[in-house]
Amino acid sequence: MEVRALVFDVFGTVVDWRGGVAREAARLLGDAVDPFALADDWRGRYQPSLEEVRSGRRPFAPLDVLHRESLDAVLTAAGSAGTPPAVREELVLAWHRLDPWPDVLPGLARLRRRFVLAPLSNGNVALLVDLARRAGLPWDLVLGAEIAGRYKPDPAVYDSVPRLLAVPPSAVLMVAAHGDDLAAARARGLRTAYVHRPDEFGGRPVPPAEDPDADLSVPSFEELADRLGA
Amino acid sequence: MEVRALVFDVFGTVVDWRGGVAREAARLLGDAVDPFALADDWRGRYQPSLEEVRSGRRPFAPLDVLHRESLDAVLTAAGSAGTPPAVREELVLAWHRLDPWPDVLPGLARLRRRFVLAPLSNGNVALLVDLARRAGLPWDLVLGAEIAGRYKPDPAVYDSVPRLLAVPPSAVLMVAAHGDDLAAARARGLRTAYVHRPDEFGGRPVPPAEDPDADLSVPSFEELADRLGA
Repeated sequence: MEVRALVFDVFGTVVDWRGGVAREAARLLGDAVDPFALADDWRGRYQPSLEEVRSGRRPFAPLDVLHRESLDAVLTAAGSAGTPPAVREELVLAWHRLDPWPDVLPGLARLRRRFVLAPLSNGNVALLVDLARRAGLPWDLVLGAEIAGRYKPDPAVYDSVPRLLAVPPSAVLMVAAHGDDLAAARARGLRTAYVHRPDEFGGRPVPPAEDPDADLSVPSFEELADRLGA
Repeated sequence: MEVRALVFDVFGTVVDWRGGVAREAARLLGDAVDPFALADDWRGRYQPSLEEVRSGRRPFAPLDVLHRESLDAVLTAAGSAGTPPAVREELVLAWHRLDPWPDVLPGLARLRRRFVLAPLSNGNVALLVDLARRAGLPWDLVLGAEIAGRYKPDPAVYDSVPRLLAVPPSAVLMVAAHGDDLAAARARGLRTAYVHRPDEFGGRPVPPAEDPDADLSVPSFEELADRLGA
C-alpha cells in the first residue's frame, strides 16, 4: 500500500515549543522569571490537563483554554502571581508563535510535492493556523484533536485521518518525535516515522535516536524526504 | 469588528462544476451522452440527496458517497445504464478535478496575505484537498460540511467557523455565488460577500448581478481583494 498522506505531531516534532515559550515569557515577564523553567513547568502541566478531558471528567475544551488555566498555576509557582490578566492572555499566544526546527521548511517543501500534508496535533485549530501562517508551514489542511473532538492518544484522532482523506489507514504516515504518539497511531493501522529531536527538552533528557517499532527513524524532515523519495 | 477570515462556497463560486463535470463525462463516456446535460442532471440531484441527510432520514454521508449513488440514476436517465462500475467510480472523481474561474487564483493570492482562507463547502474533505492541490488553491485549512457533520445550510456548518478559528462570527466573511448560502451565513452572524458567476449554469439562467442583502457584491475575487484592501 502506497503512502498518500503524512500527518505530523507539532509540539516538539515540527516546532521548538520550549525555545518559543521561553522567548515570549522573557519578552512579556522580563527578569521576573526564569523563562526556560516557566516553559518546562507549563509543558509539565499539559498531560494532566489533557487527562481531565480524556477521562471524561470534563467536556472537550480547546488547548488554548487549558493553557490559559494552567498558566495561573505556573505563574503562581514562579512567584509572578501579580501578572495582569492582559499579559496572561498574551502569554497564552506564545504557543501560537513557535519557530520550526531548521530542517522543517525545506523538508516539507519537498514532501508536499508528493504527499498530502497536515498537522495532527493536540493544539487547537486557531493555534495551528497561526503557527502555519507565521512560519510558512505548507499544510494542505488542518487535522487533529479539535477536529476529532478528542485528545491524542485517543484512537478517534488517528481514525479521523483516513476517514476524512478517504484512504486506507496504511496510506497514512504519522510523523512524531514521541514513541507513545507513534504507538497509538500504529495501533490504528497508520504507518509511523520517528524524528529525533535532541533539543526538545533542552538536552535533559535527550530522547532516543531511533524508535525500533517505527517504520522509519530519521534525524530530520529532509532525511524523511530522502527516504520517501520526495 | 475587523474581518479576520474568509470562507468560500466552492461549487460555482470557486470552481466551474458544470464545465469540469462535462469535460470528464466526455472523456469517460465519449459520444454516448450529452456531457453538459449529464452535468446538469447530476447537479439537479444534489439538493435532494443532501435533503435526505438534512432531514435526518439518513446519517451523514460524505458527498462522494451521495454523488456515487445519484450517478446511477443519472446514467440510467442518459441511456447509459451499461456503464461499467470502474468507469462510474472514475466519474465520481470528476468532482475532484474542477477548474477555478480565471479570477480565483490571482484574487486568492492577494487575499491570503491579509486573511485566513478556507473553503466552506458541502464537498467532502478529500474532494476539497484534491481540488486545492490540483488547482493551487492556497487554503490555510479546510472547513465545511464534513468537518461540521452537517450539510449547509444547517447553522452548525456556519457556526463551526468562528468556533474553530476562535474569532467572533462578525470577523468571518462568507463568500458565495448563491444568495441562500449567504442568507444562512448571515443568520449566524457572519458577514457576506456575493460573487456574480454568470456562467455557472451555462447562461441559463444567469444569476442576479448583485445580492442587495450582502455586505458586498463583486464580479470577481480580484474585485473582492480590491474592496477589502488586500
